Amino acid sequence: MESVFIGELTWQQYQARIAAGNAVVLLPVGALEQHGHHLPMNVDVLLPTAVCERVAQRTGALVAPAVHYGYKSQQKSGGGNHYPGTTSLDGVTVIRTVQDIIRELARHGVRRLAILNGHFENSMFVVEGIDLALRELHYAGVEGFRVMTLSYWDFAEDPEVIKKLYPDGFQGWNVEHGGVFETSLMLALYPHLVDMEQMEHHPPATFPPYDLFPVVPERTPRPGTLSSARGASRAKGELILEVCVNGIARALRDEFGAQH
Amino acid sequence: MESVFIGELTWQQYQARIAAGNAVVLLPVGALEQHGHHLPMNVDVLLPTAVCERVAQRTGALVAPAVHYGYKSQQKSGGGNHYPGTTSLDGVTVIRTVQDIIRELARHGVRRLAILNGHFENSMFVVEGIDLALRELHYAGVEGFRVMTLSYWDFAEDPEVIKKLYPDGFQGWNVEHGGVFETSLMLALYPHLVDMEQMEHHPPATFPPYDLFPVVPERTPRPGTLSSARGASRAKGELILEVCVNGIARALRDEFGAQH
Amino acid sequence: MESVFIGELTWQQYQARIAAGNAVVLLPVGALEQHGHHLPMNVDVLLPTAVCERVAQRTGALVAPAVHYGYKSQQKSGGGNHYPGTTSLDGVTVIRTVQDIIRELARHGVRRLAILNGHFENSMFVVEGIDLALRELHYAGVEGFRVMTLSYWDFAEDPEVIKKLYPDGFQGWNVEHGGVFETSLMLALYPHLVDMEQMEHHPPATFPPYDLFPVVPERTPRPGTLSSARGASRAKGELILEVCVNGIARALRDEFGAQH
Amino acid sequence: MESVFIGELTWQQYQARIAAGNAVVLLPVGALEQHGHHLPMNVDVLLPTAVCERVAQRTGALVAPAVHYGYKSQQKSGGGNHYPGTTSLDGVTVIRTVQDIIRELARHGVRRLAILNGHFENSMFVVEGIDLALRELHYAGVEGFRVMTLSYWDFAEDPEVIKKLYPDGFQGWNVEHGGVFETSLMLALYPHLVDMEQMEHHPPATFPPYDLFPVVPERTPRPGTLSSARGASRAKGELILEVCVNGIARALRDEFGAQH
Amino acid sequence: MESVFIGELTWQQYQARIAAGNAVVLLPVGALEQHGHHLPMNVDVLLPTAVCERVAQRTGALVAPAVHYGYKSQQKSGGGNHYPGTTSLDGVTVIRTVQDIIRELARHGVRRLAILNGHFENSMFVVEGIDLALRELHYAGVEGFRVMTLSYWDFAEDPEVIKKLYPDGFQGWNVEHGGVFETSLMLALYPHLVDMEQMEHHPPATFPPYDLFPVVPERTPRPGTLSSARGASRAKGELILEVCVNGIARALRDEFGAQH
Amino acid sequence: MESVFIGELTWQQYQARIAAGNAVVLLPVGALEQHGHHLPMNVDVLLPTAVCERVAQRTGALVAPAVHYGYKSQQKSGGGNHYPGTTSLDGVTVIRTVQDIIRELARHGVRRLAILNGHFENSMFVVEGIDLALRELHYAGVEGFRVMTLSYWDFAEDPEVIKKLYPDGFQGWNVEHGGVFETSLMLALYPHLVDMEQMEHHPPATFPPYDLFPVVPERTPRPGTLSSARGASRAKGELILEVCVNGIARALRDEFGAQH
Repeated sequence: MESVFIGELTWQQYQARIAAGNAVVLLPVGALEQHGHHLPMNVDVLLPTAVCERVAQRTGALVAPAVHYGYKSQQKSGGGNHYPGTTSLDGVTVIRTVQDIIRELARHGVRRLAILNGHFENSMFVVEGIDLALRELHYAGVEGFRVMTLSYWDFAEDPEVIKKLYPDGFQGWNVEHGGVFETSLMLALYPHLVDMEQMEHHPPATFPPYDLFPVVPERTPRPGTLSSARGASRAKGELILEVCVNGIARALRDEFGAQH
Repeated sequence: MESVFIGELTWQQYQARIAAGNAVVLLPVGALEQHGHHLPMNVDVLLPTAVCERVAQRTGALVAPAVHYGYKSQQKSGGGNHYPGTTSLDGVTVIRTVQDIIRELARHGVRRLAILNGHFENSMFVVEGIDLALRELHYAGVEGFRVMTLSYWDFAEDPEVIKKLYPDGFQGWNVEHGGVFETSLMLALYPHLVDMEQMEHHPPATFPPYDLFPVVPERTPRPGTLSSARGASRAKGELILEVCVNGIARALRDEFGAQH
Repeated sequence: MESVFIGELTWQQYQARIAAGNAVVLLPVGALEQHGHHLPMNVDVLLPTAVCERVAQRTGALVAPAVHYGYKSQQKSGGGNHYPGTTSLDGVTVIRTVQDIIRELARHGVRRLAILNGHFENSMFVVEGIDLALRELHYAGVEGFRVMTLSYWDFAEDPEVIKKLYPDGFQGWNVEHGGVFETSLMLALYPHLVDMEQMEHHPPATFPPYDLFPVVPERTPRPGTLSSARGASRAKGELILEVCVNGIARALRDEFGAQH
Repeated sequence: MESVFIGELTWQQYQARIAAGNAVVLLPVGALEQHGHHLPMNVDVLLPTAVCERVAQRTGALVAPAVHYGYKSQQKSGGGNHYPGTTSLDGVTVIRTVQDIIRELARHGVRRLAILNGHFENSMFVVEGIDLALRELHYAGVEGFRVMTLSYWDFAEDPEVIKKLYPDGFQGWNVEHGGVFETSLMLALYPHLVDMEQMEHHPPATFPPYDLFPVVPERTPRPGTLSSARGASRAKGELILEVCVNGIARALRDEFGAQH
Repeated sequence: MESVFIGELTWQQYQARIAAGNAVVLLPVGALEQHGHHLPMNVDVLLPTAVCERVAQRTGALVAPAVHYGYKSQQKSGGGNHYPGTTSLDGVTVIRTVQDIIRELARHGVRRLAILNGHFENSMFVVEGIDLALRELHYAGVEGFRVMTLSYWDFAEDPEVIKKLYPDGFQGWNVEHGGVFETSLMLALYPHLVDMEQMEHHPPATFPPYDLFPVVPERTPRPGTLSSARGASRAKGELILEVCVNGIARALRDEFGAQH
Repeated sequence: MESVFIGELTWQQYQARIAAGNAVVLLPVGALEQHGHHLPMNVDVLLPTAVCERVAQRTGALVAPAVHYGYKSQQKSGGGNHYPGTTSLDGVTVIRTVQDIIRELARHGVRRLAILNGHFENSMFVVEGIDLALRELHYAGVEGFRVMTLSYWDFAEDPEVIKKLYPDGFQGWNVEHGGVFETSLMLALYPHLVDMEQMEHHPPATFPPYDLFPVVPERTPRPGTLSSARGASRAKGELILEVCVNGIARALRDEFGAQH
């Protein structure tokens, strides 16, 4: 059976899939960013790619190569861009990367794209890349190209799921950087890349109602995570995966309809 | 007594204020964006400017001319950029505007800037403008320039305040576009620009856990607001103003210290 | 009666005005720039905005929010960009701001725009913004968008007017920075922002037939003005206003025809 | 004897000239632009290059290769950019070209540059290129780089010269596009490229006190010139050349001092 | 033992490696590009990444996440950018991506980078990204950052190796797109992604001594390869790998010295 | 007889040529770059311009003004960008210059352009300029614009010609910087600009199979040439010229057909 990854197809295989009509392409967008003492720095690429793979298997969509570098880590969502290892792009580079990829997909005949973002900070630059690309497509007389953007974690918002993941209470997505959510997913998907021995427990990060630039590094919990991964488990990861893959597959069907 | 608005000072008055040391400049950043049937389109400029003015009066800070155009309205936070009247800038234009203003303030000798954002969609582009400006200042050998960014509504998060504003329950900031919060502030500050007769009541907007581009216009409540302004009042506006001005003044003191 | 300022309208009011056909939008473009010891730094925004307001009242046009920051002050026209307080944008930022605003107005259905420039240095960057916007509109299949650009002072060139303003002889527009012309207008419109006590008399600036970069600061008259405001008066300001408003209203009628 | 043109030197010859200290480089900046029925389209390159050559011979300066393409022709100064043959650059291309050349000259050790502009519309984009380059040089720790910009015609403003050139009265530089001034210079320098038989006499162009975009082509006199070249002569061209070369040589000496 | 892939390290592991001094980072730069009927479209990412991995294992270098999208395929080197599936970036996007990554690596303390290019068309844009990054680092006062760029195939130029690979004669690197070289490497490294059954034999592509835009698609051999992969073998792939890894490891040692 | 140089035509002459149909424009693209001790720095402009002139005389094509500055000299093709005198543009400046010129030619009605590159390093930036311009023309609804790019030396690849030029064996184009090829052409075309007395003989440059940034200057042969010009002669230059002009004229006929 053919791979769901575009990169693993020949151009003829890809062409056949697009020509069959109504093809949906999934684009994972991530970052190279510190995720504390116990997680590797490619979490934001690995996780949306894994979700994309499963969604594609279920729906017949195709997965484009992930964007491996993302926008600058912000203190309140990713600890800040001052950590060694975190390797970020300027905003305009993210914008143009997204814009260029869409322009090319449209040339291939694709008209349905879902961008799965694994790194919160990318969001608005992805939006701008889409807007500029759609503007260009309009100039080119290409209408009907539709893009869905999503952060996979937004599909785990069901209160029952939240309760299972956080039996002692949910702190909010704001502090979910290297915490129970991402760590559980990594345990389910890439356990050899997680070192729970190194995981450092700490209370959830708290921040004032403003941001400072340059950041005051001491305001990020020392390991770089914003909440503790204590309580993460492989089972929780599998639950998240199931919920997110189901939800995203449904969203694609609702918005983009069936594929051939 | 001298104006707090830089634009109303002569260059000598301004120079004297900067030379006195530790001057703080406040920059309101807004948008021209639809705010429903009952509010004018400059709400996102008027409100942060008014907050800046009051903070400046209390703290001795100076207020730079507002940035009157902002980034594209998003459906889940501002109704979407398809409305007539909403007049938005590309991301890179917002980025460069902020970057240029900071470069110039630094040339004047300013080292403390607080950017008060009145339009949610600006946030990440403002962040990028700051980052690029600080990078440039570093090249120029200017160190020690510090920037605070804030959205004034984040200073009204005290549960007691929220309870007074939303006695029937708070729907979250997500749907606060042209709702009780902004309308109350406008009633307190610019009542002649509010037409409560035209206000259209509707349940809070609900959206799926993803975004679509182009937006599906029908998913925005028809008037363009994301929640109803029913329940807005001048008294609530005055409460918000007091709470926000107090909080921001305190934040400036905490982070930037006393001015001379 | 509805405001002439777009920012003070709801989107529905604005939409109705555009839909009525042949709507003309006026865009004041200014700067934050030193204007000597006796004038505030927002002169280049206040004056074109005031002219726009009056033209709009007479013609039924609408006034968009002013662009409050402009291109770098040049020594021979604005004293130079080395003064504290003068806060200028890079050329490309001005270009893109104008381009973005036109693109959005076109989306709203506007086809007639007049840009009233209050800051000489903006001129060519405004022109480029217009050219790029019209190019884009052509790509988008939008034809028939027409833009007028003007500097309001060019409407006061009638020799009889000049004679009344400068009974001792006119030095030319080149040295009109903070001189009789702008000061008279400010006295007529915003007298509380003028401090004639601080006005420093000096002979008109003279410059060699070339420019130097970096500027030699001493070549600008010390107060920053290029000619003396001695002789400015409220009456002259009113005369200028009348002449300019009349002339611009006529130009709009001649070029853009009647509005509905 | 060595050429004054940098392009005709070996790198060693060039290096020796720079190393001798205080070298001045002259950069002609022009355009490919229609100049009526009797003049070729490279007038704006040929004339400043010829002036540069003579100034260099007199002062020991060096002449860099001309920038052969310039900013878009404007109706009131060059007839408009709608003519066939007129081949113009976007503003940012002009800006970056100037910026790049200055960066490289600075690397070579040059610290004195005079930019001779032959095409009015280039002016502000050249200014911006210089400003961005000086900003960069400051980042690089290179101080003391000085740039003079000039339009050679500004050195012919002596009333006695004007009287000789325009015995029947001077219409102003505004309409000097393909008129007596440029045609006389071409007759003195490149008579084989002038075809006075084709020259079409017409009254000076008159324009309203505003600009329209797109231009109304009929408002430019049909041949594309803004005033008539009747009255142009080789002798006048030689007078202009002498006056301009003298004036520019003196300006270089005044501002940049003697070369070694 | 720790991974050689930066993405699989925690920030602390990475930091320790950089702090040990003289760390070398390897950056694979590829493309998503058709490679004929028998190879997948991610060849240009897979191959340099695999070479990097082996070089890193031998030398102690670290491998950054690959850049997965590259510059537009050219007809004479990659068949042309008109194929479905080929998904390319604009030049400036490639430039900025490289520039941003270098800026960040420098912030981490890295001073030695080798960029392994797997897609010929990237070359000059990578060069420009490096040049702009080094310019910026100079502004920031960071000196001593050194970058090596290489295409791994240039290390297989030993005539004896060439003879083993191409016993019937070498056609030159120009036509090595999806031919014996890349196919052999894929057979050695990722045999499951190669389908030799689909491989279409054809004579080497021949082109005129110029390029045309838009390309004439028929001038590319139908499968998209520029020479036939007949003759490719796993053994050849292993030979290439050994030769390239040896050569690159030696080059790193020669230029960057020993690592700690 | 009319000049083949567009710059020496009036706009009417140019218009008539374009209107006649099927006009071909030739654009020489060069650089200001060191070429050793015996050649001037404008070789890369002079040579393609001379080739263009002869091709135009033979085919009826027109020659646009050359682009006089080019992309940064690379060590292996031009000695490196560290030499004094070499004056290079950033990549994006080259890209935009080409893009702007094409946009304007298309406006004039031109549909056939051949870009003759005299400076190897320009190649990919010219390609990108063309691609962006064709994309824009597509937006503007202009189809059928075709561009040929070529380096004139690629037309001298006939083994018999190579044998006559290099009787002792050809080292490859890689080291042809200021060597027999360019020097012979200069001797045939501009002998007064060649100083064979200063020519420094040296063995061909050899480089490792990678590039380093910043370059190691000592790896370029001291004079800056990459191979010796010993053996250059006027006769060889005339042979090259004949072969290249013939070949290019034939290519234009083959691809663009006859002109009227």
